[in-house]
Amino acid sequence: MQGVTILGNNSAVPAFDRHPTAQVLTVRDHLYLIDCGEGTQIQIIRYKIRRSKIHRIFISHLHGDHYFGLIGLINSMGLLGRIQPLHVHGPAPLWEILQLQLREADTHLPFDLQFHPLPDEGFVAEDAHSTVHCFRTNHRIACWGFLFAEKGATRADIAAGRSPAGRTYAFCADTKYDPELAEKVKGVDWMYHETTYLDDLRANAEARYHSTTRQAADIALRAGAGHLLIGHFSSKYADLGPFLEEASEVFPNTLLALEGTTYLFK
Amino acid sequence: MQGVTILGNNSAVPAFDRHPTAQVLTVRDHLYLIDCGEGTQIQIIRYKIRRSKIHRIFISHLHGDHYFGLIGLINSMGLLGRIQPLHVHGPAPLWEILQLQLREADTHLPFDLQFHPLPDEGFVAEDAHSTVHCFRTNHRIACWGFLFAEKGATRADIAAGRSPAGRTYAFCADTKYDPELAEKVKGVDWMYHETTYLDDLRANAEARYHSTTRQAADIALRAGAGHLLIGHFSSKYADLGPFLEEASEVFPNTLLALEGTTYLFK
Repeated sequence: MQGVTILGNNSAVPAFDRHPTAQVLTVRDHLYLIDCGEGTQIQIIRYKIRRSKIHRIFISHLHGDHYFGLIGLINSMGLLGRIQPLHVHGPAPLWEILQLQLREADTHLPFDLQFHPLPDEGFVAEDAHSTVHCFRTNHRIACWGFLFAEKGATRADIAAGRSPAGRTYAFCADTKYDPELAEKVKGVDWMYHETTYLDDLRANAEARYHSTTRQAADIALRAGAGHLLIGHFSSKYADLGPFLEEASEVFPNTLLALEGTTYLFK
Repeated sequence: MQGVTILGNNSAVPAFDRHPTAQVLTVRDHLYLIDCGEGTQIQIIRYKIRRSKIHRIFISHLHGDHYFGLIGLINSMGLLGRIQPLHVHGPAPLWEILQLQLREADTHLPFDLQFHPLPDEGFVAEDAHSTVHCFRTNHRIACWGFLFAEKGATRADIAAGRSPAGRTYAFCADTKYDPELAEKVKGVDWMYHETTYLDDLRANAEARYHSTTRQAADIALRAGAGHLLIGHFSSKYADLGPFLEEASEVFPNTLLALEGTTYLFK
């Protein structure tokens, strides 16, 4: 698990050239796309993500800023001749939405699109070098976070002098402040937690099922996380500096999720 | 009817910073959005289109590069507090697609979203200063073109010294070469016709229900159009110069549909 690249760090309405949520997690030679807001396929081109290496896509919930770009990405993968299977993990109704749009366009994908509805919590997927589990967050509609865990070093790794540290990454999706979340990702190496608002707007955050800077940092502290990445910034903020300042006061190992930046899990 | 602003001029897969189909027609103080590919709301911001003035949206067909941006635009209009009604005219199944996505997000729009399924052909809408009719084009799935006609000068216009010329604009959507199309838009002032390919790829155009440069120009010539706008360029072409050259040889009053450019109907 080398790191995560941010493709979108804004909340609902695009602004200041910031885009809706999308991240790419690199696990050896596989790419996992986490959420896919409108325009993600353009961000993938802009930041030179190898689309063909995207092996699985995880969608946290059905608010548009987290999945409206999925059908376009899938459609383009088909037009560009993808043949390897693509696994999509998301809320069950997503499959109806995708199928309806593919059917009305009379689209026949040249690859196998495999949809896997998310369980309420627990095991989601396993590949050669990682496992993925999901957990529920506390949002206005059903919403899931994902915990990615790298497997330990294999015999081949040891022979080659590689030593993957068995790193873990938690994507905590959209959520209001909820200390129970910290229990679900206890001891994680890297954690992404939304900070839609600065801390003076706690009331807005509470009302809209979102979190503030200090709330996110508090969750990271309670979880004993190694690093905290913050994002999903409200379109009302042009300057992101105060987000970093406020969160860092509570949890020093905080980083802003900036678009086009890859955060290496060292 | 002042003119048309191009927001997207590319075919299916975005490339070379060109975007999927979207155009804004200005009719007095109303804006009509024609097609709405993914990312149209970003193009609307980039080119400073007054979103609140968009009164009607017309969707030609359910291939994604013509409508995947619609749900995101509608969603953002709601988040930004729009209150005036919005009329969407499109193929009947579009309403199911929109409703499903709004329902799963538990979205309650603050404005009245009125959907009007397109008839096979004929009358679509009438406002104070214009009428809109639709016609079928010859594409792989059901596809409609739109004919916008400005009404003549009113008493108020004459008193104010304005003299709208009763201009007409035909949006011919996606279509293979079809001389019958010329009959449907006979004598139109401005015509948009797709040119997905240069003329050496007539076989590709035929197979994929698209048109070439010379074919589009031939339709404009047969229709006796005043001006021809060409667009929907394939992602295989970085340079658009040859499109203008080839089409102009057949129909001299041809212009390239360039993103961010407004073509004034003088």
